Amino acid sequence: MKNNFVITISRQFGSGGREIGRLAAEALGIKYYDNELITIAAKESGIAPELFENAEKTASNSLLYSLAMGTYSMVGGVPSMLEMPLNDRLFLIQSDVIKRLAQESPCVIIGRCADYVLRDNPNCLNVFIHADLENRIKRATSSYNLPLAKCDDVIQKTDKKRATYYNYYTSRKWGRSENYDLCINSSCLGVAKSAEVIVDFAKIKQTQLV
Amino acid sequence: MKNNFVITISRQFGSGGREIGRLAAEALGIKYYDNELITIAAKESGIAPELFENAEKTASNSLLYSLAMGTYSMVGGVPSMLEMPLNDRLFLIQSDVIKRLAQESPCVIIGRCADYVLRDNPNCLNVFIHADLENRIKRATSSYNLPLAKCDDVIQKTDKKRATYYNYYTSRKWGRSENYDLCINSSCLGVAKSAEVIVDFAKIKQTQLV
Repeated sequence: MKNNFVITISRQFGSGGREIGRLAAEALGIKYYDNELITIAAKESGIAPELFENAEKTASNSLLYSLAMGTYSMVGGVPSMLEMPLNDRLFLIQSDVIKRLAQESPCVIIGRCADYVLRDNPNCLNVFIHADLENRIKRATSSYNLPLAKCDDVIQKTDKKRATYYNYYTSRKWGRSENYDLCINSSCLGVAKSAEVIVDFAKIKQTQLV
Repeated sequence: MKNNFVITISRQFGSGGREIGRLAAEALGIKYYDNELITIAAKESGIAPELFENAEKTASNSLLYSLAMGTYSMVGGVPSMLEMPLNDRLFLIQSDVIKRLAQESPCVIIGRCADYVLRDNPNCLNVFIHADLENRIKRATSSYNLPLAKCDDVIQKTDKKRATYYNYYTSRKWGRSENYDLCINSSCLGVAKSAEVIVDFAKIKQTQLV
């Protein structure tokens, strides 16, 4: 199996992680997948893209726990997708798309637990982007047109959902530094310089891998 | 109050954080404080350095909680040091030394919750260094001469103590990326290149501050 160099980016809401990822992909001349991933997964599975988009929601147990407990019957050595809750199926479909895209070419992937999905690829650079609340509120109002009074609430709830989704599917803790190779507070450097740090880090890591 | 540029480094045991900090200090031509800090705090307070070294131990409540609950009587607007457990007094003495050194000149400070102690200094760059377990075991055997069979246990226990100490005195969570400006997995790049990333990050951050 070919292991292309892949950068995965997890990020707090309003931290600029998406834009940083896009700039890094441009600088490195590699592909960039954010919502494109949903479009591909939806097209290939025939499931509505909205369902993939809404999949980040609270869950009481973890998928790994359900698999370990034998909650689902096995079909041909893999758990039966038909018995799974829709969200778990969506996650597995999406994971297959991530693995295939990573095999096709070097790329940057935003969110969707890609760091975990590609955990066996030694050529992955896993990045987490966070920022000071003040900067995140600024970005939420300017980039997402959120009313100032609602920003704090939306930021907290969105990150809570991202953490729950990540913790559920990976049994790791979202935002803990040890899950990532590089974590950056984008408030320190701004979006463009944060992307430069990632690009430099990626270049050094690639030379170490050779 | 003068705010010199200060780099604080928190680190997992065996991650090379100390050496990385020393290399970064050398490259930037600034001072480096690790055990030197204990020597200064011990000398100024007249308390044995061993007591400072052993202060990382489990505590059931947090210092901030005790202060908030008015556990200690106030003398001249500050809590009475004489009523405090020894470890809390050591922490406050050490914190005063950290604040003074940071005011004296730019420097790198290893451990001792310096990121939290200097939280009001906008010229601080707070770094967390971690590494893969395999690399930490290698470092533990080569740099600390630990027998291989004991490494895993020592690593887990030392980090547990560091986390407890940090969480107790700061009411933050040790190793959570949002406490730091930059977190690096030193296994990706090695010690020298990790130091370079910090130096570059520090230089960019300093230009942003101007």
